[in-house]
Amino acid sequence: MAKAKNILFLMFDQLRWDYLSCYGQPHLETPNIDRLAAMGVRFDRCYIQSPICGSSRMSTYTGRYVHSHGASWNGIPLKVGEITMGDHLREAGMGCWLVGKTHMRVDAAGMARLGLAPDSIIGARVSECGFDVFERDDGMRPEGPNGMYDPDGAKVYNEYLRARGYESDNPWHDFANSGVDDEGNVLSGWFLKNSTEAANILERDSETPYLTRRGMEFMDGADAPWLCHLSYIKPHWPYIVPEPYASMYGPQHVPPPIRSQEEFDSAHPVLRAFMESPVGRAFSTDRVRNAVIPAYMGLIKQIDDQMGVLFQWLEDTGRMDDTMIVLTSDHGDFLGDHWLGEKTFFHDTSTRVPLIVYDPSPEADATRGTVSDALVESIDLVPTFIEVAGGQVPRHIVEGHSLLPILHGQATEMPRDFVICEYDYSAQPMAEKLGRTVRDAVLFMVADKDWKMVHAEGGFRPILFDLKNDPQELTDLGDSPDHAEVIAAMYEKLHRWTRRVSQRTTRSEEQLLNMRKNGRRTGVMLGLYDENDADLELTMFYRDRTAPNRKAGPEAG
Amino acid sequence: MAKAKNILFLMFDQLRWDYLSCYGQPHLETPNIDRLAAMGVRFDRCYIQSPICGSSRMSTYTGRYVHSHGASWNGIPLKVGEITMGDHLREAGMGCWLVGKTHMRVDAAGMARLGLAPDSIIGARVSECGFDVFERDDGMRPEGPNGMYDPDGAKVYNEYLRARGYESDNPWHDFANSGVDDEGNVLSGWFLKNSTEAANILERDSETPYLTRRGMEFMDGADAPWLCHLSYIKPHWPYIVPEPYASMYGPQHVPPPIRSQEEFDSAHPVLRAFMESPVGRAFSTDRVRNAVIPAYMGLIKQIDDQMGVLFQWLEDTGRMDDTMIVLTSDHGDFLGDHWLGEKTFFHDTSTRVPLIVYDPSPEADATRGTVSDALVESIDLVPTFIEVAGGQVPRHIVEGHSLLPILHGQATEMPRDFVICEYDYSAQPMAEKLGRTVRDAVLFMVADKDWKMVHAEGGFRPILFDLKNDPQELTDLGDSPDHAEVIAAMYEKLHRWTRRVSQRTTRSEEQLLNMRKNGRRTGVMLGLYDENDADLELTMFYRDRTAPNRKAGPEAG
Repeated sequence: MAKAKNILFLMFDQLRWDYLSCYGQPHLETPNIDRLAAMGVRFDRCYIQSPICGSSRMSTYTGRYVHSHGASWNGIPLKVGEITMGDHLREAGMGCWLVGKTHMRVDAAGMARLGLAPDSIIGARVSECGFDVFERDDGMRPEGPNGMYDPDGAKVYNEYLRARGYESDNPWHDFANSGVDDEGNVLSGWFLKNSTEAANILERDSETPYLTRRGMEFMDGADAPWLCHLSYIKPHWPYIVPEPYASMYGPQHVPPPIRSQEEFDSAHPVLRAFMESPVGRAFSTDRVRNAVIPAYMGLIKQIDDQMGVLFQWLEDTGRMDDTMIVLTSDHGDFLGDHWLGEKTFFHDTSTRVPLIVYDPSPEADATRGTVSDALVESIDLVPTFIEVAGGQVPRHIVEGHSLLPILHGQATEMPRDFVICEYDYSAQPMAEKLGRTVRDAVLFMVADKDWKMVHAEGGFRPILFDLKNDPQELTDLGDSPDHAEVIAAMYEKLHRWTRRVSQRTTRSEEQLLNMRKNGRRTGVMLGLYDENDADLELTMFYRDRTAPNRKAGPEAG
Repeated sequence: MAKAKNILFLMFDQLRWDYLSCYGQPHLETPNIDRLAAMGVRFDRCYIQSPICGSSRMSTYTGRYVHSHGASWNGIPLKVGEITMGDHLREAGMGCWLVGKTHMRVDAAGMARLGLAPDSIIGARVSECGFDVFERDDGMRPEGPNGMYDPDGAKVYNEYLRARGYESDNPWHDFANSGVDDEGNVLSGWFLKNSTEAANILERDSETPYLTRRGMEFMDGADAPWLCHLSYIKPHWPYIVPEPYASMYGPQHVPPPIRSQEEFDSAHPVLRAFMESPVGRAFSTDRVRNAVIPAYMGLIKQIDDQMGVLFQWLEDTGRMDDTMIVLTSDHGDFLGDHWLGEKTFFHDTSTRVPLIVYDPSPEADATRGTVSDALVESIDLVPTFIEVAGGQVPRHIVEGHSLLPILHGQATEMPRDFVICEYDYSAQPMAEKLGRTVRDAVLFMVADKDWKMVHAEGGFRPILFDLKNDPQELTDLGDSPDHAEVIAAMYEKLHRWTRRVSQRTTRSEEQLLNMRKNGRRTGVMLGLYDENDADLELTMFYRDRTAPNRKAGPEAG
C-alpha cells in the first residue's frame, strides 16, 4: 500500500462511543466499522473538546480548544481570523472539502468589519469554517414562532426529496424525520413518542444513504490530493429511522440506565439543574428510553450498512490504497444515563467518542487492528491531517498533537497528561435557574486516566470521579476530604492549561527562537555604555559618522 | 463647560510614574502636567498590561489583556480580527486618529490569508491597529548587520529634518538622537556615555516639539468628533536631549537607586537573569545612571514645556471646553532600581504609570483636582472613550471598565479586586540562559492594593511583595512559609482570571441572555414526549401536517 494521498474524514453526530460493537455494544453489530478498526487503530480514550455540536466541531476544525477559539455554544459564531483545517491543508497543497454538516455559524459582523464579501472565494471559506463546500447539510430545518433555526437547513436535501416526489414545504421534516399514520397525519419526529414509528421515507432517500452517495460523487470527481469531510447528521435527533431499521430493535435491546438514586439525590447543584431540565426529566423515563433507544440503534445500524457500501466502493475504485480514513463523532448521547438526556455534561457517555484511523501507508502496518488507550483529543486531527498532507504543524496555532507517532508504532502515549473539555451554558435556561451571569455559567472538565474533575465557575465545589474504581462515574467525590490532594492536583493541571499561551498565533516557535539570537542585529542595542560593550559588527552603523554642528545655531524660522 | 465632544489621548513612552512633580518627583518640576491634574483626576494606581511598548499598547488600543490578544512582545503582530479602539469609536460615530507612535506590527500573513489589501481603507486600518493615520512615527530608525529594525521608522520626521537642512541618510539618528564633538564626529545616542551630550539639533526640531505641532495641525483641520492619539516617543531611549534641557540636570539630581544587596543576592532565578542581562548590569553602574538620568529628566522637562504649549493652544482655540484630555504612559523605566534597566519586569517602577484624565463636562466638576487610588488598568481607556463617544461598551469584547463613574464622582473603586500584567520573554536571550521553551518563558503579575505576586511559568516558585509594608518592593516573600495563605489567595485571583471568558467575542451578553429565553422559539424542541409537553404556540409547526404514505412504496430507481 502507498502513503496516504487523500483523507476521508468521516464524522457522525451524537454517536455514543459504546454503541459500536468494536467498542463493546452487546446488541448492535457494526461489522463494517469493526472491519475499519481491524485495518487501523481504534482509539479507546478520545475526548471531544465540548459536549455540544458546534463547539466540539469548531475545535475539531481548528485544532484549538474552545477557550482559545471562543465559539463556546451552538449559534456563537467562529470569529473571523481563526485559522482552520482548510487554511492549513490548502497551504500544504491539499484541498479541504465539505459534504454534510459543520454547525458553523458565520461571524457576519466580523466579515462586514473586514469587508469580506460572503460570495468571494475567501469570504465563502471564512463563512464555511475553512471548507470548500460540495454540499453543506446541517440536517436540520426546524421552525417555530420566531422563525427558522437555520433558513439554509437541509436546503439541497429538501430539493432532492421534492424532486423524488416528496411533496411538502419541508420534506426533511414531513418525510425524512417523521412517521405517518393511516389517515396520512404526519407523526413528527420532534415528539419522542414517535421514535417508535418508521420514518415515512424510502430507506435509500433518507439522510444517511443520501450523504454516502454525495460523498462518493464528490470523491469521484475530486482533484487529488483532497480531504473530504463526509459529515453525517445521524444518529442525531430527530430520533426516527426508516424501515427496515425501524423494526430491528425494541425495548428488549434497551440497556438499563447507568444511574443511581444516590447520584440524583446528592447531585452537585449544576449537575442537578441539568438533570432537572426538561430533557433530563424526559430521558429519565422508561417510555422515552424505550421509544428512543431502539430508533437510535437503528440509525447506527443504518450507518454501519452505509459504511459497508462506502468502504466497498473505496476498495473497488482503488481508493482504499491511498486514502486515510478517519471515523469519529462530535460527542455522545446520555440517553437517560445519569438522569440526563442529550449530551451536555461531562460523563464519558458524552465526552468520549469513537475514533478509528486507518492509514494505508506501510508505516502503519505494525499497528493495524490495535487499540490505543492514549489520551487523545479531537484537536489532534488537524495536526494529523497536516502531516499527512506533507505540511508542518504550526505549533503556535494548533493546540493538538499529531496521531502519526501512535499510528506508526513510534509512540504509545500522546504528549499530554490530561484532556480538557468545556461547556458554556450561559445561553441556556438553567443558567437563569441557577442565577448565573453569562460569565460564570461556564464549566471545565479536566481528566487523566485515573481521575476526572469538573470545575463550575461561580463559587461551586468541584465534581470528581474516580475513573479507575468507578468507571461508570456514579460517585461524585468532589466534597470528599480524603480527596483534597487529588482535587488540588487536578486543579493544578487545569490551571497549567488555563495559563497556556494560546493567542500568540502570529509568530512561530522558530521565529521566536531566532529573535533570541538576533535581537540586536537590526540595530536596537540596549545597555551599551560605549563602543567597547559590543563587537564592531553590531556597532558599526553608529561609528565613524560625521555631521555639522547644528545645536549652536540660531533658531531658524 | 460642555460635555466632551472630542478626546485628546496623550501617551508618552517609558515615562515613569514618579518622574512628574504631581506624582512626587523632588527635582523635576512639571507644572503644566500638574495643572492638568488639578483640572481633572490623577489616578495613583494605574497599571499597564505588559512592561514592553508593543504589548502594553496593543492592550491599551484593544481594551483587552495580552493573554487575550496575543501580541505578547514587540514584533509579534496583533492578529487580524482583533477589534480595536478605532473600530469601537467609529461605530459610535467618532473618528480615531493617530499622530505618533503605536509600535503596531502588521499581521501580514493574516491579511494575506483574508485577502485584505494594505492600501484599502479597511486594510490600512487593520495595518495600523485600527487608527486612521495622520502621521505614524514610531520614533526609531535603527540599523544593524541584519538590516533595519523598521524600514518605515521616523520616515516623515526624517524628511522634515532633511528639509530643515539636517543632511544625512538618517538625521533621526545623526542629529535628533546624537551629540557631536568638535571635529564633527557623531556621538551616537545608542551609547549611554553620550547621554551627557546635547543632541545636535535645534530644540524646536527635536521630536517632542515636532509631534506637538503635528498634533495641533491635525486638530486644527479635523472633523469633530475625533479622538486624536498624540503619541510621543520620548522620554524613551536613545536618552539624549537638546539644549537647554541637556544642561538642566546633573548627577546631583540623580536619586540613589532603590535596591539592596540582599535583593540581588537572593533574587528569584528569573529576576536574577534580568538583573544579569547586559541592560541590568549597565544600569546598575553609577556611570550609566549619572549619564542617563539627567538626560531622561531633561526629556521630561521638555515634554512638560510642550504640554504648556499644547494646553495653551487648546485654551486659545476653545478646545479645552469640549475636549477630554487623557495623559498616560505605556510603562516606566527601571533606571537602575532593583538592579534593572529598561522596563521588563514587574515592580511598580515599570508597571505603574501616570494617568491623568481631564473631563470638561459638568458631571466631572465634583472630582477636579482629586486623586484616585482605585485599581485602574490601561485597558480601561477603551471603554471610557466609547462612553464619551456615546457608544455602548461591548462587554463581550472589551475587558476593561469605564473610568466615568470615578470621574463623575459616582464611584471610588473600579469593579475589580486585582490588576494583571504579563510579560513574555520567550524571544529574549535570557530565555536561552534559563533553558526555557517558548511556551514556558512567560510571566504573570497579579496585584491588589496589599500584595503583588509574580508567577513564572516553568516550575519556579512565585515572587511576592508586601505593598503595604514594603512599598519599594525590596523583599521577596515568595518562599516565606508564613505567606503561604497570601500566595494561595493571589493564585486564586490569577486563576480566576486565566479561566475568564475572553474569546467569546461574537455574541453579546444581551444576545446570550435572550437565547436563554427563546431557545425553543426557532423550533428546536428537545425532551418532548408528545404535544402535551409544550404549549401550542411552540409545537404548532409540527402539528396538523399531512403527507402521503411513502414508506411502503417500492424502491424507485
